[in-house]
Amino acid sequence: MTRRLLFNAFAHITPNHHTHGYWRHPDGRIQRDYHRLQPWIDLARTVERGKFDTVFLADVVGVYDTFRGNGDTAIRTGMQFPSLDPASIVSALGAATEHLGFAVTSSVIQSHPFDFARKMSTLDHLTGGRVAWNIVTSYLDNAARNFGAARLTDHDERYRWAEEYVDVAYKLWEASWEDDALVADPERGVFADPAKVHKIHHRGARYAVEGPHLSEPSPQRTPLLFQAGGSEAGRDFAARHAEATFIASRTPESAARTVADLRARARALGRADDELKIIVALAPVIGPTEAEALRRRSEIKAWLSLEALQAFYSGSLGVDLADIDPARPLSDLLATNHVRGNVRAFVESAPKHAFTFGDLLKETNSARFAGTPEQIADEVERYAAAGVDGFNVFPVATLGWWDEFVDEVVPVLQRRGLMQTAYTPGTLREKLHGRGAFLPDHHPARRTRAAVRALDAVDTVPRPA
Amino acid sequence: MTRRLLFNAFAHITPNHHTHGYWRHPDGRIQRDYHRLQPWIDLARTVERGKFDTVFLADVVGVYDTFRGNGDTAIRTGMQFPSLDPASIVSALGAATEHLGFAVTSSVIQSHPFDFARKMSTLDHLTGGRVAWNIVTSYLDNAARNFGAARLTDHDERYRWAEEYVDVAYKLWEASWEDDALVADPERGVFADPAKVHKIHHRGARYAVEGPHLSEPSPQRTPLLFQAGGSEAGRDFAARHAEATFIASRTPESAARTVADLRARARALGRADDELKIIVALAPVIGPTEAEALRRRSEIKAWLSLEALQAFYSGSLGVDLADIDPARPLSDLLATNHVRGNVRAFVESAPKHAFTFGDLLKETNSARFAGTPEQIADEVERYAAAGVDGFNVFPVATLGWWDEFVDEVVPVLQRRGLMQTAYTPGTLREKLHGRGAFLPDHHPARRTRAAVRALDAVDTVPRPA
Repeated sequence: MTRRLLFNAFAHITPNHHTHGYWRHPDGRIQRDYHRLQPWIDLARTVERGKFDTVFLADVVGVYDTFRGNGDTAIRTGMQFPSLDPASIVSALGAATEHLGFAVTSSVIQSHPFDFARKMSTLDHLTGGRVAWNIVTSYLDNAARNFGAARLTDHDERYRWAEEYVDVAYKLWEASWEDDALVADPERGVFADPAKVHKIHHRGARYAVEGPHLSEPSPQRTPLLFQAGGSEAGRDFAARHAEATFIASRTPESAARTVADLRARARALGRADDELKIIVALAPVIGPTEAEALRRRSEIKAWLSLEALQAFYSGSLGVDLADIDPARPLSDLLATNHVRGNVRAFVESAPKHAFTFGDLLKETNSARFAGTPEQIADEVERYAAAGVDGFNVFPVATLGWWDEFVDEVVPVLQRRGLMQTAYTPGTLREKLHGRGAFLPDHHPARRTRAAVRALDAVDTVPRPA
Repeated sequence: MTRRLLFNAFAHITPNHHTHGYWRHPDGRIQRDYHRLQPWIDLARTVERGKFDTVFLADVVGVYDTFRGNGDTAIRTGMQFPSLDPASIVSALGAATEHLGFAVTSSVIQSHPFDFARKMSTLDHLTGGRVAWNIVTSYLDNAARNFGAARLTDHDERYRWAEEYVDVAYKLWEASWEDDALVADPERGVFADPAKVHKIHHRGARYAVEGPHLSEPSPQRTPLLFQAGGSEAGRDFAARHAEATFIASRTPESAARTVADLRARARALGRADDELKIIVALAPVIGPTEAEALRRRSEIKAWLSLEALQAFYSGSLGVDLADIDPARPLSDLLATNHVRGNVRAFVESAPKHAFTFGDLLKETNSARFAGTPEQIADEVERYAAAGVDGFNVFPVATLGWWDEFVDEVVPVLQRRGLMQTAYTPGTLREKLHGRGAFLPDHHPARRTRAAVRALDAVDTVPRPA
């Protein structure tokens, strides 16, 4: 039995998202023209033709500055730098498409939740309910220092911050406007019923927000909630809040372990398995034959920039990898006590064919798998069998690559019943979860409704002048 | 001698921008459909056909809650409520047009300058340099309480806040990337030169921002700077920073006084007169004959909501007007000592035909003037003679009204040389000021360049681990 899986086109408005160094390739137009609108419109139309669920817009709000203690390498290699604002492109892509969703990454450190909630409601209105929020907490010291902190807040504290942040947003999205608050009756001259538009009176450790929400309820109210975080705190957050979570995994076997763990956490909170879609990366090099795919993969790997990869993994692991010689064998590294924590886990995750640390770095998220469309579909089925619900598809060679995936791989996936052949009507949430435009009533977002109304009743007495 | 004046289509993503109550009219589609994309795309294309300079997107980040001490009236009448995020619509309108500019209102209280500066750079990239920022400081207590303050910050302190806010943004836009920092050379594999991409190391009363800016220089670097503020502090701010300022004025004579005052302030700072464009409202009811225009004006006035106007002026004057009976004669009000400050000035500004306070409230910004296209052009010339450089055109009856203005009034203005007949190539700044895409070097934004480089030199020593 097969089931329809989710497919997101993974993207970032930056010269180099994951195939670090590939912007130098002559085919790298979207990477060099990353700051123009047209290549993104082209991409959106292409993946909508391929019945993708969303364009998943990644983001960072700082430069990768862990490697050698500065951002020079990231700046020189254009490694996720520049990094433009993903939300700004959504209305244009929404106007150019009809069904495609847009997942916007936004960190709790970068914007105030009142302003952010209004922006997401606006985008949900303008796209007819096709917006998702990828909730992140940032992992770069420079990002923290761009927003007034001396360094990155402690990891668990960042998730406590995220808890308050989403609580504010939930109250605005779900609780501020009752379902029948919008009247819009020209005869009576009533646009909205003030008795049903509530202040939220939020007071927490970081935020004090009065409300009401400045947007009438958008098609989904709360945008579809994506999240990506592999730590204990991150998994708990996903189990509690996310409707889709993006997990790191190098094999179907490791994916299966993470899926089991996340499902257990979500079930413990009373959530059904299909309320939380679990997504892994899919970064295939496509070829008409396996040999040609492998040849292309070698060619792509030759374009990779080792120092850009050092800068990338230093930032994402939170450890300066400058002291580890890329030529050093992995076995040698594992024999020392100096390699600990995150870095040891990273080294232990190496595939068998990686011999040196440099080999491992080049096992980047892009171009990880190479094969024919049928072999790619086999790989997709292996992940599906491991309990995975969908994929963030990484472009490995941009532009031409998206057409190739849509023209060559998508028909095979569709023939096997793994990918949808037509869009379901309705909002993004209805397309993905099939149970209405809004979150289910037991979700923490919906549970803010009663609390806000109880609070607001206290405020019906006019304030003293 | 005539000169080409500026024309902005004044808009707000809200059911009722200024013709308060008009959303109830059967023609009010864009007002009731304010949260959908298509009417805005239609509007942008219409005014681009009419060779308007920009769509000027107004905004508020709170509900008008001064009247009777609560927001009920604004909520019930849809008076600038809901109020959606203007920046979110820009990329879609940019994709639908070729030359039109987009002025985005954003308050210093609503977003962090690092995030805001990146967003504006992104929009400037995506539109090919057609973005302006209307710098505001907010005037509603509820807006302040949505962002953590107990009440609105003192007026002069808000401008000190704005000074620091623009300083941070300027450093990111102008100083962080040197002109030749972007290399983008695939052969050498160098995307940007780290020695020419600077941290800004901003430390001020409210913000600590490290940088670098996460956007390569956009076509204009700093977006075109609009401002609107009539107070002493507001005028000083405009004279120092703004490239266009929107002044309140009921007559050409009062406009002339404000123009003289602003010009004197700007000259004292070494700025040429044409560096600061001065803009007034133009809200004409159009008719084929004067009699028909006046009849239409009466009809529009009949749709006005007096209580929405009470709520609007209470908020914009910062005084609860609930105690002033709209039926009360203005002469009577001026005879009492209870009417002071802002409210007295407001009453004194009343046109001769306004007899009661309610009459004055209905002299709202919309539908202020009525006439044939030739008479409207005469009115435009009177303001031009008073030294005004352009107009924020208020739609008085939406949708059909924009077509009418473009088809009937624009040709008359163009024939008289008052309005451009074709767009100048280049960025919005080049279109409006004709002296290059960037701000002149004596502008405070450009003067941040030397300071940032001096600071950054100190930081070339790697930080301790």
